[in-house]
This record gives sequence, structure tokens and C-alpha cells, in this order.
Amino acid sequence: MGSLNTDDILDGQFAGDCLQKPLDPDEFRRHGHMVVDFIADYYKDINKYPVRSQVEPGYLRKRLPEAAPNHPEPITDILRDVTNHIVPGITHWMSPNYYAYFPSSGSTAAFLGEMLSTGFNVVGFNWMSSPAATELESIVMDWLAKLLHLPSQFLFSGGGGGVLQGTTCEAILCTLSASRDQALTRLGRNHIGRLAVYGSDQTHCAVQKAAQIAGINPSNFRAVPTRREDAFALTGESLRLSVEKDIAAGLTPIFVCATVGTTSSTAVDRLLEIADVAKEYGMWLHVDAAYAGSACICPEFRHFIDGVEGADSFSFNAHKWFFNNLDCCCMWVKRPEALVAALSTNPEYLKNRATESRQVVDYKDWQIALSRRFRALKMWMVLRGYGVANLRNYLRAHVRMAKLFEGLLRLDCRFEIVVPRYFSTVCFRLLPPRCGERDVDEKRTNELNQQMLESMNAEGKVYMTHAVIGGVYVIRFAAGGTLTEERHVREAWAVVKEHAGKVMASG
Amino acid sequence: MGSLNTDDILDGQFAGDCLQKPLDPDEFRRHGHMVVDFIADYYKDINKYPVRSQVEPGYLRKRLPEAAPNHPEPITDILRDVTNHIVPGITHWMSPNYYAYFPSSGSTAAFLGEMLSTGFNVVGFNWMSSPAATELESIVMDWLAKLLHLPSQFLFSGGGGGVLQGTTCEAILCTLSASRDQALTRLGRNHIGRLAVYGSDQTHCAVQKAAQIAGINPSNFRAVPTRREDAFALTGESLRLSVEKDIAAGLTPIFVCATVGTTSSTAVDRLLEIADVAKEYGMWLHVDAAYAGSACICPEFRHFIDGVEGADSFSFNAHKWFFNNLDCCCMWVKRPEALVAALSTNPEYLKNRATESRQVVDYKDWQIALSRRFRALKMWMVLRGYGVANLRNYLRAHVRMAKLFEGLLRLDCRFEIVVPRYFSTVCFRLLPPRCGERDVDEKRTNELNQQMLESMNAEGKVYMTHAVIGGVYVIRFAAGGTLTEERHVREAWAVVKEHAGKVMASG
Repeated sequence: MGSLNTDDILDGQFAGDCLQKPLDPDEFRRHGHMVVDFIADYYKDINKYPVRSQVEPGYLRKRLPEAAPNHPEPITDILRDVTNHIVPGITHWMSPNYYAYFPSSGSTAAFLGEMLSTGFNVVGFNWMSSPAATELESIVMDWLAKLLHLPSQFLFSGGGGGVLQGTTCEAILCTLSASRDQALTRLGRNHIGRLAVYGSDQTHCAVQKAAQIAGINPSNFRAVPTRREDAFALTGESLRLSVEKDIAAGLTPIFVCATVGTTSSTAVDRLLEIADVAKEYGMWLHVDAAYAGSACICPEFRHFIDGVEGADSFSFNAHKWFFNNLDCCCMWVKRPEALVAALSTNPEYLKNRATESRQVVDYKDWQIALSRRFRALKMWMVLRGYGVANLRNYLRAHVRMAKLFEGLLRLDCRFEIVVPRYFSTVCFRLLPPRCGERDVDEKRTNELNQQMLESMNAEGKVYMTHAVIGGVYVIRFAAGGTLTEERHVREAWAVVKEHAGKVMASG
Repeated sequence: MGSLNTDDILDGQFAGDCLQKPLDPDEFRRHGHMVVDFIADYYKDINKYPVRSQVEPGYLRKRLPEAAPNHPEPITDILRDVTNHIVPGITHWMSPNYYAYFPSSGSTAAFLGEMLSTGFNVVGFNWMSSPAATELESIVMDWLAKLLHLPSQFLFSGGGGGVLQGTTCEAILCTLSASRDQALTRLGRNHIGRLAVYGSDQTHCAVQKAAQIAGINPSNFRAVPTRREDAFALTGESLRLSVEKDIAAGLTPIFVCATVGTTSSTAVDRLLEIADVAKEYGMWLHVDAAYAGSACICPEFRHFIDGVEGADSFSFNAHKWFFNNLDCCCMWVKRPEALVAALSTNPEYLKNRATESRQVVDYKDWQIALSRRFRALKMWMVLRGYGVANLRNYLRAHVRMAKLFEGLLRLDCRFEIVVPRYFSTVCFRLLPPRCGERDVDEKRTNELNQQMLESMNAEGKVYMTHAVIGGVYVIRFAAGGTLTEERHVREAWAVVKEHAGKVMASG
């Protein structure tokens, strides 16, 4: 079990060795060890690769055969192809130098949990199909709710409950469907064309997409404008204006999504104000803390979700910044019965005594799909394998890294921090020469930053992505990678400075 | 890397050893090896456990603490809890004696592929985010389409294309949304309340649920009745009757789901006839071959999907009977642009040159969620690790096992095969004494079979489930487990005989 490098593994005693059976414990063991070593080596060597893949569209089709092989091929040969053909086409989300989008915070503990889940391979659609899958999920969701100090109505003991979805998109589609069906039960099915759904112009596209899938008239989706002076937060006042205008036009507002940590700039919508408006107009309030929810297990960040008491549902993505490998979205609702009313099915072939006893949760009625993986093992492994104190420490370390990067930017007057940094993401831009002067040429500045970003990413030492906030093109530096250390942040700063100099010189 | 038993692993050199970092290659390696051994031992010992979990609702909450631990716990301790507290609550879908629902056919190759996917942990929402994830998926979907002899319009080269969804539920919701939006573009948004969706009374509940999520009026979902004399297949004639009645009532039929291998009885709807009706009325035809699609890579089974040429989309679950661990649903469409029109989003923060060049597939626009795992690695590993010839052999072996079980039942006049067996699932029942006599007391017979099934499952040597088909309670024997061999089938037959004798004697 020592450290092997990939070539040793692939040229070792198993070279040429094909799988003889679809599943055999000894073959499983041998090949499982080989792939563990392969991945450990990948993490060890991850700095060798450009962070953002540099391949061209269609690169892989040229390299692979046109049809599946008729005869088995040795796993060693396949792994060699992974190295030669797949790795070059991967953007290395696990790299310590990955600062793009939001992190994909895989960890050792989560990997182990995912292995167990894949190994048991249970299809946990209802309690009966594998009681442990349902019960462990309910338990870890209560654990997490306590860590986040969610109101007791979100816990099972308080009449609510949590569920692990794949992604926030699914969480929003489920809650939106529940709110739609509540409204239609009251107003009649013919009213569907007059239901309205709200987010801000900073809300993730998932809400608009969910509304479209749920059959909401696309012209009744509102991206309520935000303003720079509100730090791009959705306010109660602007929501109310939009809602009242729609009501006057004969529409019925049913759902608002408030975001804690928007994708573009990590803005935080004003939950308390929004909850008041939602309550007044009988709307379902979902709080999407996909990215920033994780930080709220630290007391010093918990205030960012103040107001969640007024929400009907809350979610965050544990695969973003809570050390769970993709996918793992934690969602809570106050009234599971509203979800079940919209999403339940009860065919004969799934009938069973436990369901009929009404003593169990059947999670198939809390989500879109019937089948579901045993994701709770992963979360349980993360919570126990690291412990809450260390998880808080890891999160704080990422915030410190972002602060460090922000501090370095602030010391260099060529750069501007475009929006306040709340968590581990810094939105900045390079300003054209004439340091400190007013009346920036916005168009030119945007182009300059676009050039600088493309220049950095093409080099491959780091990977960052962009957003446009209030017309301003910003570069996003999102810390939170599990392998990232302070030294990587300092190296990233050196890369930024170098490319800034380069584009300044050429521009 | 030898064979260790779980206690050796857990009491070995790593006992008491906590993870020191969220991700460290050496810790990852050591603990990864430990969990591989743990799972290999689980497979070795899987016969020790009752197949269906025997725990009572709420068993786990009594055993676990009320809150997450503050400090890290050794992985060895967590694994010991898995053995002591989780395994008893698992229904062993991977057991060779598991014949319930449909199989969950995990394999060594798929496990290795899932490990790689979890290890790379890329979030492959668009091409840009990890080109290999998108390109490998397109390639393996073309490979599979060729194996299934799907019409060329389902291949990328023919203007169509395939995508890996999580489950059939998602596949149906996506295609149904596409068909709905096509219709609404033509008819206007206000028409949504008058759209109608069709399946049969044997169609999986996923279709009704998808229609409900997509905002179709629940009273416009048709479960067209099937008949015993048609072997519970949906026919063109009965579909046409239903469609014409709805049109006369002012509705617009938009979508029909035909099934190849229904959940209750593996019935096969009459695709050719249904395709004609769908074409005549401009409906989207989706063919759901969730279970039986896999078999169609064997020439002798391919005829079951004859008529797929007339479909707009086709899907099967590779996690059911194609040696992929959960989840992995293969779906093809002829016109990806219809999916994209219904499901695309294009926020600024995801804009990139590759997308703008229109030379790439962005799979986020082919599915519900934005984020997606690199599932293609798993399928690629299965296709290459076993090869097509062996995959066919494995599938044929399962069909032979079902034939063997069917043959044993036929030799015993106490039993009846209720519907024709086409694949690896046998639907049978025990008849009350008076062998061969007519006028069975259906109510008593149903109760008798329910008793026999519960008696078998409570014992735990095998696990089977039931369905009610045309008022008849049947026991389903679904072969296809990756560990199942002929000897297990003979043992299952012994169990059935024993419990039949027991309930006969007591009744």
C-alpha cells in the first residue's frame, strides 16, 4: 500500500489482466487498490497540468475508436488512456490553483463515503427499499440543521425535515412545484398562466429554468433589478414594487427565491425584508445559500442567514464548499406535506407496510426522481471524519485566503475590488493606467480585464472566471479548493500581477 | 493488498488514526485502500445478511448521537459503525439472492469508473468546464446507440444525440418539457391547461409525476387501459381511441410514453402501432426501455424495440441491467434543439468562446440541473472492461436463470406463470389446492400469495416483490444481480417451495 507512481501501477503485476467476472470480490479488491493509487497519484501530480483544459472542440473523437470493443481490455490499458486522453481534457477542479466559478470541494472523507454508497449500490427510493439510507439521511440533515441554527420547524422533530438533493436546480424545482400546486389547489388549474415567480437580476439561472420546467409562463418570471448602492442585494422594497405591479395586472405571486451569496458577486439578499413581503402576499420563500450556506456553521457568519425563520425552505450545496464531492445539495422544508402533495406517487408495486404505517419518510416524494443514491453516507463521513471544529477551521482558512488575496490587490492601486467581499470570493478588476483617476472608460476597462483573464487562463497556472455586475466586467477569485494553501494564493497573486503588466504593456 | 477481513482492517495499523487534512494524497491512499478492502469483504460476506433489512422504523435514531461530533473520529470507528448500525438497515441490492423490483447491477468496472469520476470531481455543466466529460459522454452514447442499432437520427452524426441522465424520471421530464414547449409555441401559453399526456395503466409512475411537475393538468393524464389478452401491452388502437376522445373534448395530445418492459410485468407496448398514432396526431413519442433496453444489445432481443425509428426519444437505465452502479440513465433524442429550447440558460458567468463557436455540446441544456457528474467514465469503463461479447453473455446468463426458474415453476402444478416471460423477470403465483381446476377464488389466491411473499422476505434468504396485474397479485422474480449464479436460482426455488408448503398447510 505504499506510494506508487502511475507508471509502476500500470506496468506492474496486473498489466494485461482483464476482468473475468462482472463482480468478484478479489478482482474488485485488486483493481480497487490500483485505482485508489491512480487517484492518489493524480492528486500528488495535479500541479503538472494546466488548470483549465487547453484542448480544442472535438479533440477526443479523433483519439478514440468509433465503436465499443468486442473483447475485454485490461484495466491498466484503460487507465493509461485516462492519463493520455482524458486528463488533458479535464479542467482540474481539484487543483489548488482552481479559483473559477465556485469550488468543487472534494475531500478524502467524502470520497470514502461515496465509495461505500457506490459499493452498497442501494436504490433508496422509499424507507422500505433500504431503511438505513432514509434514516441516516434524516439524522444527518437534523445534525446539519442544528449546526446552522435553522429554526426548529426545519427539523423532523419540529414537523419539517431535510433531504439530500443532487443540486440546487432540483431543490428549487421541487419547492416551486409545491408552491405552484398549493396555489392551483386554491385558485383552480386554469390559473397556471397567471402565476408569477420572483428572483433578482443576480439570482442563479436555476430559478428561471425551474419556473419554465414547472410550466410557469416565462413572461411571468421576474428578475427584479438590484442596485450597486445595495451591494446588488434584492431588497424588500423592490420586491414589493414588482409584486404589487403584477397583482394590479391580475397575476398571482407564488414564489420568491432569495439568495445568500449570489453566483456573480456573492451578494446577500435582504432576507428579513423579503420574508415580510412573502408573508404579506402569501408567497413561498426559498432561501438559496448554495455557496455561502456552508460558512454559516461558523458563529461569525451565521448572521448572513438571519431571516431564514421566515422562509418556507432553505438549501445549500455541500458539494460546493462543504467538503462533499459532487453531488450533494442539502435542502430543508417546514412543511414536507406540501412537497409530498406535489411530488408523491403510490403505485401498487411500491406499496409496503412501513409506508402504510405512516411512521417513515419516503424520500421519493420529496424529489423529482424515484431512484436515489445513498448520499447520506458521504455527508456522515465528512461530519464525523473531520468534526465540526475542523470543518469550521477549514472554512475560515479559505476566508483568510480570500482576505489575503484581497489585501494584496488593495495594496496595488492598479486594481479595484468591485463589490464587498463577504466570504471566500473576491471580485476585482484591473483599471487602465491613470491610477485613482475618475471617469474610467468602462468599455475599454471591460475589454482589458477580459484580455487579462484569457491570458491567465490560457497559460494554465491558475483558473479564474468572470461575471458582469452592473455592467462591470469583473474577475472572480473563488478560494475554497480542498488542496489550496496560502502559498498557492500568493502564487496566484504573482500570476495576476504578471498578466496585468503584460496586458497593460500591450494595450 | 491481500484478502483481509473487516476486523483485521479495523484493528490494524490505522486504528485510532484520524484524517489530518481535508485532502492529502497519502491519507487518501491509505484510507482508500482500507475502504476498498471493506467493500470487497462486504461482497464476500454478503450471504451472511438477510437480503431484505429486518429493522423497524426509527431503529437508527436510537443508536446514533443527536448532534455531529465536534472533533474528528477515526475512519476505523466510522467503518465499525457502518458494520454495526448501517449494514443491518440495508436491503442488500447487491446480494446474489436479491430478486426484488429490478436489479441494481453494480460491477467492478463501474465501481472503478465511479471512483475516477468522484476523484476528478469535475462539474461538467458545459463543454468548457471540462471538455473530456462532455466529449467522452457523446462518444459512449454513440457507441451504445450503435450497439442497440438505434436509427442514425439518434446519433450525433445524424443530427441527434445521447446524454447520460441520472434516472428515467429525469429523462421523461426533459422530453415532456420539450414537447410541451413545442406545443405552446404553436398554440400559445394559455393552452397549457388543455395539453394531454398518455401512457398505459402499466406505465411507470414517472410519467404521471413528470406531467404533474411540468404543469400539465393532472386530469389530462391518461393511463390507457391494457388487457390481459394483449399481454398488458398498450396498443395503437386503444391509444387512438383515447386520443380521439380527448381531441373531441378540445384537448391537444402532445406526448405518449411507450414502454418496453413495464415495471409490473415487463410487458412490451406495440411501438410500431403507437408510432403511427403519434405521427398522425403530431405527438412526441418517448420509448422507455428502462429495464429491458439493455437486453436489446443482443441480436435475439433487438426486435423488442422495433418501431423505435418512429420515436422522438429513447431511454434505458444502465444502472438497472447494464452493469453500471446507480445512477446512469441513457437517453437519446432525434432533435436536441427541442430539448435545448426548453431547458437552456445562458447567464453571463457561463459565457465562453467554445459555446459561442457552436461547435460543442453543452449538456446543461439537455437536463434539469446545471451541475453534472462525469458519468461517462463509468459507462466507458464497463464497455471496455468487459467488452460487448461478454456483456451479451452476462445478459443472456440472466435470461437463462429466469428461464430455469420459470421451468422449475412449470413443473410444479401448484404454480402459475401469470404473464409471458420475455426477459429475466418471471411473474408467478401460487394457486390454492385443487391443482388445475378452474374458477380460482381470486381474493383468496391474492391473500395466499401475499402471505407467501411476506413469509419468504421475513426469513431473509431471498427477496422478491409483488405487483398487481389485471387484478391478480403476482410475485416477481427479477434475475440480473451481478453476483447471482445458477445455484442461487435453484436455492431460491427451494425457498419458494418451502414457503408455498408452509402457507398451504396453514391456510
